[in-house]
Amino acid sequence: MTRPLTLHPDRLFPSDPGQRDIARRLYTEVADLPIISPHGHTDPSWFAGNAPFGNAAELLLHPDHYVFRMLYSQGVSLDALGIRNPDADPRTSWRLFAQNYHLFRGTPSRMWMDWVFAEAFGIEVQFEAATADLYYDRITEALATDAFRPRALFDRFGIEVIATTESPLDTLDHHAAIRAANDSGEWGGRVITAYRPDPVVDPEFEGFHTNLARFSDLSGEDAYSYAGYLAAHRGRRAFFASLGATSTDHGHPTAATADLSKTEAETLFARVTNGEVSAADAERFRAHMLTVMAGMSLDDGLVMQIHPGAFRNHNPRLFDHYGRDKGADIPTATDYVHSLRPLLSKYGNEAALTIILFTLDETSYARELAPLAGHYPALKLGPAWWFHDSPEGMRRFRGSMTETAGFYNTVGFNDDTRAFLSIPARHDVARRIDCGFLAQLVVEHRLEEWEAADLAADLSYNLAKAAYKL
Amino acid sequence: MTRPLTLHPDRLFPSDPGQRDIARRLYTEVADLPIISPHGHTDPSWFAGNAPFGNAAELLLHPDHYVFRMLYSQGVSLDALGIRNPDADPRTSWRLFAQNYHLFRGTPSRMWMDWVFAEAFGIEVQFEAATADLYYDRITEALATDAFRPRALFDRFGIEVIATTESPLDTLDHHAAIRAANDSGEWGGRVITAYRPDPVVDPEFEGFHTNLARFSDLSGEDAYSYAGYLAAHRGRRAFFASLGATSTDHGHPTAATADLSKTEAETLFARVTNGEVSAADAERFRAHMLTVMAGMSLDDGLVMQIHPGAFRNHNPRLFDHYGRDKGADIPTATDYVHSLRPLLSKYGNEAALTIILFTLDETSYARELAPLAGHYPALKLGPAWWFHDSPEGMRRFRGSMTETAGFYNTVGFNDDTRAFLSIPARHDVARRIDCGFLAQLVVEHRLEEWEAADLAADLSYNLAKAAYKL
Amino acid sequence: MTRPLTLHPDRLFPSDPGQRDIARRLYTEVADLPIISPHGHTDPSWFAGNAPFGNAAELLLHPDHYVFRMLYSQGVSLDALGIRNPDADPRTSWRLFAQNYHLFRGTPSRMWMDWVFAEAFGIEVQFEAATADLYYDRITEALATDAFRPRALFDRFGIEVIATTESPLDTLDHHAAIRAANDSGEWGGRVITAYRPDPVVDPEFEGFHTNLARFSDLSGEDAYSYAGYLAAHRGRRAFFASLGATSTDHGHPTAATADLSKTEAETLFARVTNGEVSAADAERFRAHMLTVMAGMSLDDGLVMQIHPGAFRNHNPRLFDHYGRDKGADIPTATDYVHSLRPLLSKYGNEAALTIILFTLDETSYARELAPLAGHYPALKLGPAWWFHDSPEGMRRFRGSMTETAGFYNTVGFNDDTRAFLSIPARHDVARRIDCGFLAQLVVEHRLEEWEAADLAADLSYNLAKAAYKL
Repeated sequence: MTRPLTLHPDRLFPSDPGQRDIARRLYTEVADLPIISPHGHTDPSWFAGNAPFGNAAELLLHPDHYVFRMLYSQGVSLDALGIRNPDADPRTSWRLFAQNYHLFRGTPSRMWMDWVFAEAFGIEVQFEAATADLYYDRITEALATDAFRPRALFDRFGIEVIATTESPLDTLDHHAAIRAANDSGEWGGRVITAYRPDPVVDPEFEGFHTNLARFSDLSGEDAYSYAGYLAAHRGRRAFFASLGATSTDHGHPTAATADLSKTEAETLFARVTNGEVSAADAERFRAHMLTVMAGMSLDDGLVMQIHPGAFRNHNPRLFDHYGRDKGADIPTATDYVHSLRPLLSKYGNEAALTIILFTLDETSYARELAPLAGHYPALKLGPAWWFHDSPEGMRRFRGSMTETAGFYNTVGFNDDTRAFLSIPARHDVARRIDCGFLAQLVVEHRLEEWEAADLAADLSYNLAKAAYKL
Repeated sequence: MTRPLTLHPDRLFPSDPGQRDIARRLYTEVADLPIISPHGHTDPSWFAGNAPFGNAAELLLHPDHYVFRMLYSQGVSLDALGIRNPDADPRTSWRLFAQNYHLFRGTPSRMWMDWVFAEAFGIEVQFEAATADLYYDRITEALATDAFRPRALFDRFGIEVIATTESPLDTLDHHAAIRAANDSGEWGGRVITAYRPDPVVDPEFEGFHTNLARFSDLSGEDAYSYAGYLAAHRGRRAFFASLGATSTDHGHPTAATADLSKTEAETLFARVTNGEVSAADAERFRAHMLTVMAGMSLDDGLVMQIHPGAFRNHNPRLFDHYGRDKGADIPTATDYVHSLRPLLSKYGNEAALTIILFTLDETSYARELAPLAGHYPALKLGPAWWFHDSPEGMRRFRGSMTETAGFYNTVGFNDDTRAFLSIPARHDVARRIDCGFLAQLVVEHRLEEWEAADLAADLSYNLAKAAYKL
Repeated sequence: MTRPLTLHPDRLFPSDPGQRDIARRLYTEVADLPIISPHGHTDPSWFAGNAPFGNAAELLLHPDHYVFRMLYSQGVSLDALGIRNPDADPRTSWRLFAQNYHLFRGTPSRMWMDWVFAEAFGIEVQFEAATADLYYDRITEALATDAFRPRALFDRFGIEVIATTESPLDTLDHHAAIRAANDSGEWGGRVITAYRPDPVVDPEFEGFHTNLARFSDLSGEDAYSYAGYLAAHRGRRAFFASLGATSTDHGHPTAATADLSKTEAETLFARVTNGEVSAADAERFRAHMLTVMAGMSLDDGLVMQIHPGAFRNHNPRLFDHYGRDKGADIPTATDYVHSLRPLLSKYGNEAALTIILFTLDETSYARELAPLAGHYPALKLGPAWWFHDSPEGMRRFRGSMTETAGFYNTVGFNDDTRAFLSIPARHDVARRIDCGFLAQLVVEHRLEEWEAADLAADLSYNLAKAAYKL
């Protein structure tokens, strides 16, 4: 007694018939625009090597912390799900997922996953205990075919460009290989990198001190002297840019910035690179480096992204057994108005600089971020992020931001995901929700429909392309 | 020229006709489910003694701080309303209420009260100055009849089980009497207690030091030694469980938790039980005791509830004249992510433990609580609480929580009230709002209608029963 | 190929047809009620001198920091816009505005501006690059006519009373001139002042120390002694009241209040009036003075307004070049529950006192402000303010406040603007949004339509008039 799986063409459009009609018209014009994915965490080795993905559990369950965190919260064991447990039978783990699929009702994971099942794999029955094996077999078989290799999916998904995220310690070999494939005409897909220097900027990052050794090696600078350290950044940024990077990214616990004098900075740098680092010194160094990085962006043109406000690895027991990125990062209340002032006082008026700011604290939308972005030429607002990358989250984002920041201080959507298969679904959700939001403005006579149509294309495609210089 | 009082069958359903149709269908299936009231403040003596309630003012006005706080805010004197003033004529107080009933437009009190008037008492004209006496007489006469005694109302309201809240210093005589009535077949109503140890856990509670003397007496332990104090808790918890308790409850000013070593705890306990207690010590002791109580819950199976974040007795002049619980408790900004970490680091991964968390700070919904509950197996989310126990408050709760925590990390509705007559109205509001929320998901094709029907029953009945082990 | 400019009669009403019908009916009854503008920043010299306004850029672009901040955020130079730059050609500046008018899509500025264009000036084509000159000429020509002089517009706009805001250092000559014109029968418009003592209350205000000299001169008191300083306030308040003032206004960085003993206050006053002022002393003095001002309001009957929570002049480079009020004020997270307690403990129970509280931090709506206003007799809630004076901002305000504070602890709308031409548009937005909110309550059967009609008139007219004693 299976149930049919269908994706309704009107899904996520507003209920109101007047709004829905307009949303549908707006969406029709943007549904098939290419995907610009300017920030995310896919693995460049996929596109360099183009090896087939493994089985259903390996592709869709093990790497998706949105999914296994929810299962874990309801008492399902991570070991049984195969998280960091090679002994788990993937089919058995997959069945556990199927049995508990009802837990995802009302969540974006459910919508993304259903899209992957129905659209990517063409499955026509709903996912539940009774269909677990059918799903496992269908997906695993498909993955063995050429049509489901990374490059084929990239092309099929209509991706115009995708950015991955790498550390300065990465040699970017996969990116070089992709470039070679581009140049030889073997494959045309555009995959670029982004410069994420947290491992050599955050004194509290695992292995910070030894990371600087490798940073020195790769850059040919002495990264243990402050001048050499800055030169190493400049060098690696240029190297990243040579492999297509148009942006940097900074994942800090807070949005603190500072603008230290050369002497202060040198003294602080000496402290954080020698022995024990106090929490205050670490915070101050990160804060100073954001301002330094903004200055380098003004010089080399890389767009700067700031992703602050996650309390990483909140669950120590889980961290000890399973490591990072296991669903235990929790947002915190985040101040921007005081924190960003040192950086903005120095660089905020530079129209040639682009700083894209994200938040996990929605209270800052209307109170701090929209007023800041509606004033400073350098500042733009990234889309609803992480836990808020969801239909209601996007509605709150647009509802809170637009009246003060307008649409043109935002930068379209980015998926920020390592779940490659779900990328079209995520962009599709954003396009549908934005069309619905615009439709409301039209029905309330706050916008004309031709303007809404312009905006729908801007929010779906043009703004991301322009803001990230793609 | 009185106006008719009618409760519209579609009240609180969404306006959109498509949503409303579905909401109505969903509601029809859950409207008559029994009431599970797992947390509240009704008086067990009502059900033990089954004495008739007094007059209209005594039953509906004097104990309801939602009502008299609003009247007071508009300049109506508490004395005139009969609050702590036995000299006030109840009919005159009641007339004051009637004259000012328009102040409640748009508030949940108005909806609950109208339900009580129309459904509980069968009154058919609206409440206003002109009908004040008619109301007073009709209600007061009804209260003198057997049909309006506490047990009869309990049965008529379809209450399957109700929990009251008692201090460890309570001997639970009323609960014992109710059990005796159950056992003798005199009455079948299920009324249980809950363990609320604030008077012996919070060093700033009125009479804390002398409370420990009574705590010692009742438990047969020396509650002035730390070991005896813990043993006293264990003993009283077991006694409460023997009279039906399945939960504890903790009303702290913040959500701070701590996990002190035995020596630290003993030293701190010695300080807070000897002479003057500093605010920092009091906070630290409460914080530590939350973790201790979680450990005891893991041992004895009592579900743990935490109700943090109220600034109690904000108005000192009012407190001096009228005492506690007079409408002057004000919510405060409340951190969870840092505060709860000590407790969650120790016990958060225990799937056998249930901690139900409430908040008065809605900014924590999407930012902290949903991510925490969507990860930690021990954590569940209580419903929209107190000031947020309202149609819009519930919509914000579901809208902010669901996408990250799902529905199954929530625990259904609880009324948390001492206003016995309003209990069916409160549960009815929650069922209507939840059905409306589910209907929106169905119309937007984010959920199928059969799933929404399952969820409607879960949110109205099953989740509360399961989470509270009822 | 110009496009027609029309204001749709149903603009800003909810999309839902059931709600829209009711909103339209409610609005019809309040659309033409006179405007009560109890708090704002128009220039009394306009009404005293009745000189014609200048050109389009001078009237509509240069003074409107909502407008030029958005243009600046997108890289348009303030110099080119003519901000503090008399060399800029106003027509050229105006064209820049026109070319970038799409930036305002979805913002309230767009709605207010379109109203001014269509209703105040009767322009029938949309504003864009191609119509920039037509607009400039039509507006500039109209401004030269008698019908567009300040008094004529005041009368045409249906303004019953407007309050401006002046410092105690103002001699109120323009207000006296308006009174004279009233008395002579020359003009009947009612323009009153409001007492805004920040320049002599905030030790960090530009020129605080020398301001006290002028304060002494104007009051005939020695404002450098604490007793004289208080007497000077009393004197100036009485003088302001003699020219119609019914309110005071206080724009503080936080909502901190304090209630110092006479000795403490004298000591602190001596410190802040002698030499360098520490930030802590400045904050403490402002905090104390809020309580002092509340006491004076209890004595002289002036309604007290508190506008806290703006971080003023966030952009130092902009401030140095262009001065205050250039769009770089940013809201901050603001505590009320602890901050206001000293003042409310002393005066909160006074039903004869009215304190109208505003916030830029929407998180305080449901969490702190509604519970406080729903309890303290002295406290009322000002409307959605500044960045939140917008359709979505007003909806969040009503949605978050009403259930706990009711409607009657709010005070209707105020425009708080210096953009005189937009005043009718702003009040119209508020009336439309409130009618829409009420219509939702009616369709959801939470309110009867006759009650909604009463409330629509209260929110549009009666509440402001009563709260501000106009």
